[in-house]
Amino acid sequence: MLSKAQSKYIRALSQQKYRKQHNVFIAEGDKIAKEWLMSDWNIKMIVATADWVEQNHQLVTKHNAELFTVPDHELKNVSTLQTPNKVLLVVSMAKQTSEVGAGDWSIALEHIQDPGNMGTIIRIADWFGIKHIIASEDCVEFFNPKVVQAAMGGHIRVSLHEAKLKELISKTEQPVYAAALDGDDIYSLTDVKPGIILIGNESKGLSQDLLDTASQKVTIPRKGGAESLNAAVATGILAALLTGR
Amino acid sequence: MLSKAQSKYIRALSQQKYRKQHNVFIAEGDKIAKEWLMSDWNIKMIVATADWVEQNHQLVTKHNAELFTVPDHELKNVSTLQTPNKVLLVVSMAKQTSEVGAGDWSIALEHIQDPGNMGTIIRIADWFGIKHIIASEDCVEFFNPKVVQAAMGGHIRVSLHEAKLKELISKTEQPVYAAALDGDDIYSLTDVKPGIILIGNESKGLSQDLLDTASQKVTIPRKGGAESLNAAVATGILAALLTGR
Repeated sequence: MLSKAQSKYIRALSQQKYRKQHNVFIAEGDKIAKEWLMSDWNIKMIVATADWVEQNHQLVTKHNAELFTVPDHELKNVSTLQTPNKVLLVVSMAKQTSEVGAGDWSIALEHIQDPGNMGTIIRIADWFGIKHIIASEDCVEFFNPKVVQAAMGGHIRVSLHEAKLKELISKTEQPVYAAALDGDDIYSLTDVKPGIILIGNESKGLSQDLLDTASQKVTIPRKGGAESLNAAVATGILAALLTGR
Repeated sequence: MLSKAQSKYIRALSQQKYRKQHNVFIAEGDKIAKEWLMSDWNIKMIVATADWVEQNHQLVTKHNAELFTVPDHELKNVSTLQTPNKVLLVVSMAKQTSEVGAGDWSIALEHIQDPGNMGTIIRIADWFGIKHIIASEDCVEFFNPKVVQAAMGGHIRVSLHEAKLKELISKTEQPVYAAALDGDDIYSLTDVKPGIILIGNESKGLSQDLLDTASQKVTIPRKGGAESLNAAVATGILAALLTGR
């Protein structure tokens, strides 16, 4: 059973203000909860149904977390999801300390607003072994529940940073591949070296300022009639063509 | 002004049952509405704010649609979107008659459930000039409002079909590239010819039955820790690697 105060505390964590205040976030659902329980992140609370706790006894007891065994309706009451789930975790935000090395690939994001896109991009980085994501300060927050949901545990393996992109790009000695509609054909690039894949806002793309600073503008050639690609899809294609082979 | 009956009619179109019954769907928002108004699809109703109507006078008068100039709150009342918009269309579903030709690329989808993914995949096809999308009968419907939203007008240029995939795949003389976790490395494929890119369900992937029927299983090699890629992202990467160059 959760007390009223505990329920209120968890529900408040759907808001960034309270996540920042308490330095924790929510990870929900069987698959995602297991990823975090298998990691070395600091789990504060486990709220789960009795059958889930029974089936995952070992994972649950591995942590010093407070455990709350609750009926479905009580879980639903604190959940951020529309579809029912069996488990919700309150997890302590880890500090992102790993430095970008010269041989590392990174993805830098300017003003990505959609949490689904942000989470999907973290998942892409996680698939291709891209070590870092660097977000401008006006991006949707990494620990937004919808971002956590879409990233499918990617937070655990990808190092997540916030930075002023102009400064970062003007200082780096790595190549910066900026996604643009009028750049070089991505298929004809030669001499590709690990660097930064730079992706802009969903509707406006990259700001002119960042495009001017980047060392190379790249384009996925269009053969049809669409005006643009979804930001996460474009990131996936650039990741596959630049880092994948 | 919309009458009560008209408001009720439009709101009901968020449900598939009523879309099928009336053979119409909703297209919303400035960008998407303009795409449809510039097309030759049969527009039944235009519900828009006065300033939007004024700015788009030519587009509006091009059609024989019923025009309703309404205040913001009335538009919000019939909208399927959470964020405010200036225009909503009720559009007649076009018949999808174009046949798949031997030199055409197609994307076939088995049990894609998420409307955002479906719409994003239509947008991908639209970008790469892939002519056809063929969906199994258990996919989310093409004219679901969230699909229309994510496809950004792709419906207008991509031919959308529903079919029994097993039958289709066993009959086709084209190559069928099935997305799998244990297929051939997509980068090392040679002799790629126009065919069908086959994508499975978001959590379960393709059914064994379809995998067995496909002529070639293909895989985007994983270098990191993620269990899978998002279905739309995987589709985008396969489209880029198979059809893009």
